[in-house]
Amino acid sequence: MMPSSRPFASLQVRGGEPRTGSRMVPEEVPVAFSYGGSTHAVMMATPDNLEDFALGFSLAEGIINRADQVISIEPIEADTGIDLQITLEDQTAEALTSRRRRMAGPVGCGLCGIESIEQATRPVPAIADHGFCIGSGEIVEAMGLLGNQQVLNRETRAVHGAGFYIPGQGLVALREDVGRHNALDKLVGAVLRGGWTPSTGVVVVTSRLSVEIVQKAAILGSPVLAAISVPTALAIRTAEQAGLTLIGIARGDEFEVFTRADRLIEGAERHVAQSYR
Amino acid sequence: MMPSSRPFASLQVRGGEPRTGSRMVPEEVPVAFSYGGSTHAVMMATPDNLEDFALGFSLAEGIINRADQVISIEPIEADTGIDLQITLEDQTAEALTSRRRRMAGPVGCGLCGIESIEQATRPVPAIADHGFCIGSGEIVEAMGLLGNQQVLNRETRAVHGAGFYIPGQGLVALREDVGRHNALDKLVGAVLRGGWTPSTGVVVVTSRLSVEIVQKAAILGSPVLAAISVPTALAIRTAEQAGLTLIGIARGDEFEVFTRADRLIEGAERHVAQSYR
Repeated sequence: MMPSSRPFASLQVRGGEPRTGSRMVPEEVPVAFSYGGSTHAVMMATPDNLEDFALGFSLAEGIINRADQVISIEPIEADTGIDLQITLEDQTAEALTSRRRRMAGPVGCGLCGIESIEQATRPVPAIADHGFCIGSGEIVEAMGLLGNQQVLNRETRAVHGAGFYIPGQGLVALREDVGRHNALDKLVGAVLRGGWTPSTGVVVVTSRLSVEIVQKAAILGSPVLAAISVPTALAIRTAEQAGLTLIGIARGDEFEVFTRADRLIEGAERHVAQSYR
Repeated sequence: MMPSSRPFASLQVRGGEPRTGSRMVPEEVPVAFSYGGSTHAVMMATPDNLEDFALGFSLAEGIINRADQVISIEPIEADTGIDLQITLEDQTAEALTSRRRRMAGPVGCGLCGIESIEQATRPVPAIADHGFCIGSGEIVEAMGLLGNQQVLNRETRAVHGAGFYIPGQGLVALREDVGRHNALDKLVGAVLRGGWTPSTGVVVVTSRLSVEIVQKAAILGSPVLAAISVPTALAIRTAEQAGLTLIGIARGDEFEVFTRADRLIEGAERHVAQSYR
């Protein structure tokens, strides 16, 4: 398997003074997603946890709704990248084939890009959260665990992380990638494969909150999404629409809640955790 | 025109104590690139400097080689996003139409994703730099100017910036966007439209250095690319191949050079600046 990071020589300049050094940098390779032998997309990604990546990407793209619609995932390593050969169950494969037939040729109505724009902002599913709530201390804990447990980022300081935190159980899954979308796709695949119930936990990410990050969390079905950085306006509107609790600027013991703050139970971490189990 | 940022209410929690507040967040809208009425792609972007964006995107995608191949750019604003209707000169439009015909239908050879992978890592042009060199103090100055002059980032702390720095002239262009690729596409368009010679300056970005950032800088033809954060392994290999000087981790008076360090003239900022003019 390809390594996730490699050492490179560098000239380190400080106050105008150069000295030779070395630095571990993350690997980035083209990863192709091929269904039934036809390539759907190529993402530039860190070459690890590829089966999680295939599953999470397939869910985010609307190719599958459930993990068991994927029969097998076979990574084929080439000199220039990795081809993930994904075999879908018959009915799902047929649905993709007919969708591809509709998409062939130039996109759009032939007059303008409005149709394509509407596809880019497709509605997200509403969260079915069964009354999930969480204490502010648990948000702080989840973000702290994410920062502490990022192995590849500790080595390279150059990759994003996405984690799944269940109150009372901690950070049950964590995935990393040079791309923030990829890190979350890998996490979604890990949650599906691990058998955790998405509606019982929080998705935490190190990245900014653009609309696609909100879409991926909502498609997974997690009621809370928290990030180190700031959301975009469209991310906030999309979270509102999905009924997702969107938390940004989560650093140290501070964070800001932009939507559905009612899921936050102030100073009641222990109570929440107990009633939850 | 749509605003680039908007205020949103937020619940600000600190040490478990909540208080209501407000925060300016960047706008993110779908921007479609339509050539001759057919949409080529939709990017999620900050809705400003759209003509620069159209030009830079068209260059990065290999649809044009020169600014004058674009006859007109007309932004059509819809409720859900913006459609950039781009009119190309005849020969360029025909080349795009025939390329689209080849691309129609599912991608790949029908057996694997290798062909698609090779497209993703297409060779970049070699830099024709005419002996360009730069002092370490100028790199520090360029990065400092980038940080100081980011208007939208000062307001939102949530957008990336890309700038073009010419020794002796300073930061002559700066563009911002929620997406780091978009910020650089906008900058490339601004450099083309502004009439600056790409081989006489440095591209500076606030983001990480993934391979696509290196590809865009090399296609523009700038000999030096500097960033606040760390490059990926593929970004370093691609910069090496293009003969681009790749500088990462540029913070305060420190930075690291990963490729073509020979363009750096130690402690000779004034000499370089003088000989340059």
